[in-house]
Amino acid sequence: MIIDFRSDTVTRPTPAMLEAMIKAKVGDDVFGEDPTVNELEQMAAALFGKEAALFCPSGTMTNQIAIKCHTQPGDEVICDADAHIYQYEGGGIAANSGASVKLLPGDRGRINALQVEEAIQPDDVHRPRTSLVCVENTSNRGGGSCYNFDELIKIKAVCDHNGLPFHIDGARLFNALVAKNETPRQYGDLFDSLSICLSKSLGCPVGSLLLGDTHFIKKAKRVRKLFGGGMRQAGYMAAAGIYALENNIARLSEDHLHAKMIGDALKTQNYVETVMPVETNIVIFETKGVSAKNLVVLLKEHSILAYAIAPTKVRLVLHLDITKEMATRMIEIINFLKFY
Amino acid sequence: MIIDFRSDTVTRPTPAMLEAMIKAKVGDDVFGEDPTVNELEQMAAALFGKEAALFCPSGTMTNQIAIKCHTQPGDEVICDADAHIYQYEGGGIAANSGASVKLLPGDRGRINALQVEEAIQPDDVHRPRTSLVCVENTSNRGGGSCYNFDELIKIKAVCDHNGLPFHIDGARLFNALVAKNETPRQYGDLFDSLSICLSKSLGCPVGSLLLGDTHFIKKAKRVRKLFGGGMRQAGYMAAAGIYALENNIARLSEDHLHAKMIGDALKTQNYVETVMPVETNIVIFETKGVSAKNLVVLLKEHSILAYAIAPTKVRLVLHLDITKEMATRMIEIINFLKFY
Amino acid sequence: MIIDFRSDTVTRPTPAMLEAMIKAKVGDDVFGEDPTVNELEQMAAALFGKEAALFCPSGTMTNQIAIKCHTQPGDEVICDADAHIYQYEGGGIAANSGASVKLLPGDRGRINALQVEEAIQPDDVHRPRTSLVCVENTSNRGGGSCYNFDELIKIKAVCDHNGLPFHIDGARLFNALVAKNETPRQYGDLFDSLSICLSKSLGCPVGSLLLGDTHFIKKAKRVRKLFGGGMRQAGYMAAAGIYALENNIARLSEDHLHAKMIGDALKTQNYVETVMPVETNIVIFETKGVSAKNLVVLLKEHSILAYAIAPTKVRLVLHLDITKEMATRMIEIINFLKFY
Amino acid sequence: MIIDFRSDTVTRPTPAMLEAMIKAKVGDDVFGEDPTVNELEQMAAALFGKEAALFCPSGTMTNQIAIKCHTQPGDEVICDADAHIYQYEGGGIAANSGASVKLLPGDRGRINALQVEEAIQPDDVHRPRTSLVCVENTSNRGGGSCYNFDELIKIKAVCDHNGLPFHIDGARLFNALVAKNETPRQYGDLFDSLSICLSKSLGCPVGSLLLGDTHFIKKAKRVRKLFGGGMRQAGYMAAAGIYALENNIARLSEDHLHAKMIGDALKTQNYVETVMPVETNIVIFETKGVSAKNLVVLLKEHSILAYAIAPTKVRLVLHLDITKEMATRMIEIINFLKFY
Repeated sequence: MIIDFRSDTVTRPTPAMLEAMIKAKVGDDVFGEDPTVNELEQMAAALFGKEAALFCPSGTMTNQIAIKCHTQPGDEVICDADAHIYQYEGGGIAANSGASVKLLPGDRGRINALQVEEAIQPDDVHRPRTSLVCVENTSNRGGGSCYNFDELIKIKAVCDHNGLPFHIDGARLFNALVAKNETPRQYGDLFDSLSICLSKSLGCPVGSLLLGDTHFIKKAKRVRKLFGGGMRQAGYMAAAGIYALENNIARLSEDHLHAKMIGDALKTQNYVETVMPVETNIVIFETKGVSAKNLVVLLKEHSILAYAIAPTKVRLVLHLDITKEMATRMIEIINFLKFY
Repeated sequence: MIIDFRSDTVTRPTPAMLEAMIKAKVGDDVFGEDPTVNELEQMAAALFGKEAALFCPSGTMTNQIAIKCHTQPGDEVICDADAHIYQYEGGGIAANSGASVKLLPGDRGRINALQVEEAIQPDDVHRPRTSLVCVENTSNRGGGSCYNFDELIKIKAVCDHNGLPFHIDGARLFNALVAKNETPRQYGDLFDSLSICLSKSLGCPVGSLLLGDTHFIKKAKRVRKLFGGGMRQAGYMAAAGIYALENNIARLSEDHLHAKMIGDALKTQNYVETVMPVETNIVIFETKGVSAKNLVVLLKEHSILAYAIAPTKVRLVLHLDITKEMATRMIEIINFLKFY
Repeated sequence: MIIDFRSDTVTRPTPAMLEAMIKAKVGDDVFGEDPTVNELEQMAAALFGKEAALFCPSGTMTNQIAIKCHTQPGDEVICDADAHIYQYEGGGIAANSGASVKLLPGDRGRINALQVEEAIQPDDVHRPRTSLVCVENTSNRGGGSCYNFDELIKIKAVCDHNGLPFHIDGARLFNALVAKNETPRQYGDLFDSLSICLSKSLGCPVGSLLLGDTHFIKKAKRVRKLFGGGMRQAGYMAAAGIYALENNIARLSEDHLHAKMIGDALKTQNYVETVMPVETNIVIFETKGVSAKNLVVLLKEHSILAYAIAPTKVRLVLHLDITKEMATRMIEIINFLKFY
Repeated sequence: MIIDFRSDTVTRPTPAMLEAMIKAKVGDDVFGEDPTVNELEQMAAALFGKEAALFCPSGTMTNQIAIKCHTQPGDEVICDADAHIYQYEGGGIAANSGASVKLLPGDRGRINALQVEEAIQPDDVHRPRTSLVCVENTSNRGGGSCYNFDELIKIKAVCDHNGLPFHIDGARLFNALVAKNETPRQYGDLFDSLSICLSKSLGCPVGSLLLGDTHFIKKAKRVRKLFGGGMRQAGYMAAAGIYALENNIARLSEDHLHAKMIGDALKTQNYVETVMPVETNIVIFETKGVSAKNLVVLLKEHSILAYAIAPTKVRLVLHLDITKEMATRMIEIINFLKFY
């Protein structure tokens, strides 16, 4: 049996989720007539206290749509240098929106209000016009780190003071909510737009949601069309989303527990230099005496899949398809491996 | 019972297709690991004799990706003034690719080789650089009209002579193949890239395929990522596509027969000015003494859904969910309506 | 002696204009410190009754800046199919602004209010969002045709009713003003933005002006910077502009008279099919029994330069460097040429 | 008398340069017929051993054109985090070219070959495609620092090994050539494209040159047209450029000497924390006990103009209009100022 820690995107629907999918009532969502998509969008909007939501094929699309709606070509987006929107979305900020980036050196993927304030460009034609602030919570490259909500409130104050919209890449926001005991409403109240993924920790096969006010979502629909993200009978996918929102959130604490256990086990190994603090479902560690690539190969020989994210950095991600037994097995293998 | 002639995009999967979907083996397609997506892509590529294929959420996305791969900003695309890529894709040619359009006045959506030749820009900095020729077969706004294959060969010769790639928007290409008794291979051999929809006449809930050579599809994957079109466990949707390619092509002739019958019935009505020649599954007619909008309202009172595409033009589309009985019922209603 | 009718862009400064240039006080205009540029901008703004102006290297730049300021990617611009902005600016509407075009078949380059009204897109994600109406006066490809001012007022009303800004490509607006006895103020009052060329009929070596309100010109400065259109000691060029505004407008009527005479002479020739009505300084005629290209070669043998703008269309442009004697000489040659 | 150290862009033509301008033979450069522009382009191309050159209104335009010619939307440009192309060109890399930036932390604006090698993206759809490496010599924000030519050779080797074009922003390249005793040919041989400013140290009122091979410059002309950078009788400006290339290069060593003297004088002041090494005509120093802004105000009271480029950083630039007497006067004032 292969245990796949590469990403929480690899999950396959459980039988119950699949059952929900197959029973979905569907229609043509491009005409706004898919009842299941409509239900999911209303459910998610209500959960976060936003006016409207838009179902999209991916988190990259929801982020890229948000950036395009909030900016014009020649504008600049403030974000962490490690942000997914800059690192892993194919250069989309520039390619889709013609927007520059002001990259801040955050603390494990998290920027602070002071940094944001200092990063806002003066009114000078030589400089791009700052028009958006983005944060990512949890931070993928930050090892699943969570923001302190007070800092987000402070960043929001800087945004308000400077007339800047505030977007959150919430690909793994539910992990943060569970870890920090926060509510969706807190985030819905704070952000102008939110991108929420269903296909990561929540275990859905496909789909992300973009949340915002009615005017913003109307604009977003235009951009979704431009990108070709409008789908027809998307209700099958949306049904999985509804199921996940109802059933798969609370259990994230198990993933976090398993991640913590694995992180602790790694700390004492002679092939591990350091382990990033484990706050949610991601474990990133620095190797010692072995390259990340070689360690990943070795793990594969033990039927463990992991991801080398840098020459000496390995990432493990816990998710719905990793049971307690699998996590325990992983710890056995961690303890078994030694490098001389 | 409502009979929905608005579009062939409104079809819902049959039980057999749904069965195929639910049984699909899935994986993370962003990692290239969804076996069903891989199978569909290989199947479609083989069918058309192309090297590779890419599964996408929509036909707008496959077209827009193709245009972006074939052009650079400042280039120009030659197409019919009624082309879907210009009329109904949100202005994507300009917005996604920064490309201009040279719009040709075709014959029911079909351009000819002479027009294309004359439309190619001279080498002059005042002019955009012509870099792509696109045709649509069947033509949506042309009332489902089909190209004469000999004309496509001639256009291809003009393209070759001028070093221009040739793309086909084949949203309803299978309708043309069935109507004209042509083969996918003929089209695969002629075009550099093809966009094929599974969600229209073929009856799938979601999905389109982009076909081309290996290099082109590699480039296309980058653009799909940029647009956020990469999906995770997309195999459920792909399974419907495989089912459709195996089971839903031959039956298109029934739709064409029904369309013909309905077109014939319309010709003799006092509220119909003209009916466009019916070649496939689309019937477009001009109203007389009644606006398109009002006629659509009246049809709705008889549980018939149709689409007013212009002040005095109504479109009816036949598809998988319109049975012979429904087509017959439609003809009864057509004969029943009268305007004085 | 060569007489150059190819374009009014070929003029060289007169000694008096050159004298004004050499005496110009200059400074760094990127810092806003070139006194002559500032004087020209204020003078032009005052002349048209607009709040502000921006000096740029070319009319293509002033038009492209205006389009970029008035639109966002995915928007659509309404203009005549023969408009300079679509035909001769390198595909810039799409490449610089990501905007689509709605091309109207006007009357010698002039569109009307009814056409504009019908061209405005409905609120539908399949369609680009109409966001700008552009006219060109005089129309270059329309043979120097002038708008009837009443029609412009009607188009403005359609713009206002639909919340659309109204831009004029006034590359040769002064020709229209002189021909129709109109005032700059009339145009300044009607249009949200105006592009005015100094390097065409007005005889300056380089430069165009963009006019609008303060907010618009501030935005325009950002785009000028993006395009690299900010110049340092541009006052030498601006001085020519000031000279031209003070001295070269009234004399345009001479060009118009010469154009009329030449047009009349052409009408009776056996190698001329038709002559477009001559309203200002441009003469466009259709050849008969000889290609435009060959006629241009033949004229060159008589030291006359002309421009073949289509297979059987030749354009002649009158300007500051064509004296009465030259125009008379041209008529002699016109009468001399014969084709059998 | 005011002494303006804000930038070397503030220079006004000398009487001899102005004389050259006024005598220039001019023509319509959009038609390629301005003899003086042609002469300047050929002269500059020959000087650097490149096939062709293109005269443009600004260094921002030459850089932005080069970036647009070398990249496609979705690509990535490698440069120093302090590069002018990223910091001071209005966000043009993203806005004009849709390209991302990989920002390297260089040594006073200078990146090295190892950094470049590590910054090249892997072949992965999540990442933009690296397609261009840019350096700036001298570096503006690096305080006029010069590259070691050996390092440029090493970066070029990395470029060649990875199929990447290599562009230099040579706004002040002549300062580097003079300071390091290098030749234009060395740079022409190394770089695929070069941007050279005439309006900075060389003392021209307007203009920059883009150099490259014939194919590249042909492509560049298209982009110049798109941006509206084509000018008509630009020969007046070009004549200044010819004059400058013939007369104003050798004298740059005087500016460097003055800069060195001023830098040395600053080092011993109680209001100066540190002075960046002075290599060419720029002096940047960190203030102590006084803000940059306040120091600039104080200098202005002594008729000295300087530029606060950061809260505690002041920049002084030497140039053609700063005589030895003015530099001496500046040193007197530097010694006079004291803060308690």
